[in-house]
Amino acid sequence: MTKNLQNALECIENFGLKCASDEASRFAASIDNSRYNSMPDAVVYARSEDDVSHVLKTASEFGVYVTPRGAGSGCSGAALPLSGGIVLDLSGLNFIEIDPLSRVAHVGAGAVTAQVDARAGEFGLFYAPDPSSHKYSTIGGNIAHNAGGLRAAKYGNTRDNLLALNAVLADGKIIKCALPLRKFSAGLNLRDIFIGSEGTLGVVTQAWLKLLPMPESKKVALAFFDSDLRAFEGIEKILLSPLQPSILEFMDSDTVECVRKRRKCGINIPRGAAALLAEFDGPESSALDSANKFFKVLAPDASLRMAENREEEELLWSLRRSASPAMYELGDSKIGEDIVLPFGKVATYFSFFKKMARDMNLPAPVFGHAADGNYHIHFMYNDSENTRERALQAMKAAVEKAVEMGGAISGEHGIGFLKAQYMNIQHGEPEMDAMRAIKRALDPKGILNPNKLYCSCDNNLKPLRGVKLPWD
Amino acid sequence: MTKNLQNALECIENFGLKCASDEASRFAASIDNSRYNSMPDAVVYARSEDDVSHVLKTASEFGVYVTPRGAGSGCSGAALPLSGGIVLDLSGLNFIEIDPLSRVAHVGAGAVTAQVDARAGEFGLFYAPDPSSHKYSTIGGNIAHNAGGLRAAKYGNTRDNLLALNAVLADGKIIKCALPLRKFSAGLNLRDIFIGSEGTLGVVTQAWLKLLPMPESKKVALAFFDSDLRAFEGIEKILLSPLQPSILEFMDSDTVECVRKRRKCGINIPRGAAALLAEFDGPESSALDSANKFFKVLAPDASLRMAENREEEELLWSLRRSASPAMYELGDSKIGEDIVLPFGKVATYFSFFKKMARDMNLPAPVFGHAADGNYHIHFMYNDSENTRERALQAMKAAVEKAVEMGGAISGEHGIGFLKAQYMNIQHGEPEMDAMRAIKRALDPKGILNPNKLYCSCDNNLKPLRGVKLPWD
Repeated sequence: MTKNLQNALECIENFGLKCASDEASRFAASIDNSRYNSMPDAVVYARSEDDVSHVLKTASEFGVYVTPRGAGSGCSGAALPLSGGIVLDLSGLNFIEIDPLSRVAHVGAGAVTAQVDARAGEFGLFYAPDPSSHKYSTIGGNIAHNAGGLRAAKYGNTRDNLLALNAVLADGKIIKCALPLRKFSAGLNLRDIFIGSEGTLGVVTQAWLKLLPMPESKKVALAFFDSDLRAFEGIEKILLSPLQPSILEFMDSDTVECVRKRRKCGINIPRGAAALLAEFDGPESSALDSANKFFKVLAPDASLRMAENREEEELLWSLRRSASPAMYELGDSKIGEDIVLPFGKVATYFSFFKKMARDMNLPAPVFGHAADGNYHIHFMYNDSENTRERALQAMKAAVEKAVEMGGAISGEHGIGFLKAQYMNIQHGEPEMDAMRAIKRALDPKGILNPNKLYCSCDNNLKPLRGVKLPWD
Repeated sequence: MTKNLQNALECIENFGLKCASDEASRFAASIDNSRYNSMPDAVVYARSEDDVSHVLKTASEFGVYVTPRGAGSGCSGAALPLSGGIVLDLSGLNFIEIDPLSRVAHVGAGAVTAQVDARAGEFGLFYAPDPSSHKYSTIGGNIAHNAGGLRAAKYGNTRDNLLALNAVLADGKIIKCALPLRKFSAGLNLRDIFIGSEGTLGVVTQAWLKLLPMPESKKVALAFFDSDLRAFEGIEKILLSPLQPSILEFMDSDTVECVRKRRKCGINIPRGAAALLAEFDGPESSALDSANKFFKVLAPDASLRMAENREEEELLWSLRRSASPAMYELGDSKIGEDIVLPFGKVATYFSFFKKMARDMNLPAPVFGHAADGNYHIHFMYNDSENTRERALQAMKAAVEKAVEMGGAISGEHGIGFLKAQYMNIQHGEPEMDAMRAIKRALDPKGILNPNKLYCSCDNNLKPLRGVKLPWD
């Protein structure tokens, strides 16, 4: 630990903040859901916006790196303190207040996503973004990555459900970015520059989130197709129809086959089938009407099933929930990305991806959010240095192809450090320069979450095996 | 004209762009819907993104100011070249391409809002933002101000309906900000920093807009209340119910009385009534169901009417359309702002505003978008130097009060130079510093649209009277 860091920590402790530098605390703050890790020198636990302001002001004075952290549920390593320094734990800023008249949730950055939704539910409202980590991810982390989820099909990502936020800049100054109002056109849009900025521009401390009236009714329907290609044709038909599913999940035949093999899902799954799981919400009559139209649009090409009650809904959902764990039928390790594809290119891309997988002898299950073109592509392998290297190379080629076809390197997971290597595939120098100029403007000393997002640097880190994270 | 400007124009003309410096062309580019004006030295007409890039590169080299211009339909003077230099006319970049599968409109910055909506309509889709200027405003201008409109009640502002854009930076470099995809979490959010930036960070040249399936059906309903206060109680009831009107327009009793006096609206208007006009959209059954619920919620306190056919709908709309012109019953001049209020503060604010108007002896009609708290407040007067000064002072106090109550100085009109005086009411120094830092980062020489947004400077300009603008 450097002298500067010691001085900074002393100053922070004197302010009354809890600091930890024991091995266990540092290890817990060194890892996220990417399973990579990098040890910080110390962990500081903030309880308030003032705490955050004091920590950053001090860190700025002493030139100490600060990496903000919510739950650590991110998949791209954004919460890892790659250059050591302080991890600033924000999970203590977890207040949740609901204003039912304004349909606004005012929450601390450490508030857990699912808890915000649950509290909104007490007022007949809901918070739409539902990343698969929603039971433990925090709103601050959701903002940092512009987290999505299943309901993004109809309700968009975190960005689309955020009204205002407060952020603390690197020098400790607190800025109020917009207000909890439905409209705000009053000067430069400071709020949105923080969405997806992964803690590199400032630390988001509190947010005001848009809530929506809970839909009166939901209808869940499942379609099995003979082949992946048939499923993609079905998706195109849905997208060209006036239907607006609140959820539209695709599972390719490899994924569905894994679930079938595990026999843990109580649905009779046809061999070789690809699946599409849809939810329609709205007033009772219109949700049912939409589900019926969904049937009509797909009827010639799919075997269809509508959930008649809550129990059957759960059964249909279990297929989707089984997808991720069931993939381990194909290997003990996986590499995944969450690319986004233009709707017209999905089938072509899929053929390319599967051919590459066959050529490389790597199982490659895919599932995704079909209504927003956000596909989770995977290569499965059994752990060994060689196959891992091969899978990483194949994934880079797969990501390059997605961008070549007009797609994106990430739809909801963000960049962190793991995808920093893809940044110059996605962006040209003018975009990278503009990003770096804004970074320098707001964090001139570069103390906030270094070595993420703006660099396309290599690293020699490897994921840890056999570590149990809090949500495992 | 300075030597530098002459050299810049020569270089721009040599590139093949049309430049005009005659009085008529310069005057046409000197004024916007604020009716204030300031003459440029020359007007340059861009036809392509490359043109824009060349103009900015050249202007940057020679240190010449550039003020981008769409239709000039803005209300806050953002398009006025306050420091002379070049007005860059973007109305020629007006292509519109619809991709029905992706539900995306790819448009030039000069594409007219209503034309985008009409072209989308050919595919059963619509573009939601509908500022009152939509028949002539351009998408570039809409982005520059984060334009709203009536349907923002359900569908949000321009920001909520924008997927991607290209911008040319001050040095002529073109940056691609996001992609026409439903999700994009790949680095710093460059796209959104341009929304509401009013041409001060770069020139938006093209955009990809989100389209939605046209609702199957719409139901329009009108409610008259005995008093403004009763109307606000009605609005609160609607906001606390699960109803989601696609439009919810409030007209106060002063506004309604002006319409009644003019007798140009074919509706039987009760004396002293305030009005609420609502539209519900969706599948046939659900739109009707919502309109019926609207009746039920308001029934005890309002006299209600539902449009049974297209003709009756038009009749109900005519009330709203008459509001703005009818106000001139109360004076030959008006000063207006478009504040946003927290939902819980509307009635209290309204009482304050009306009391101040009475005390100052100024008629003060109000209408607004009730579902997003965005109210257009006005002071009417008969033109004379003294009353104008009094109205301006009263308006400043009214805006200050809105901010004091947690509101915003603008919801959809933006700042330009007319509201620059309110910026330090809305924002503290840390926010203003952050905005200026980003401005300097992207436009270090400060050539883009100077003297707007970032300064709270006074000016001695006065609006022109009796000028006919293209849409008058």
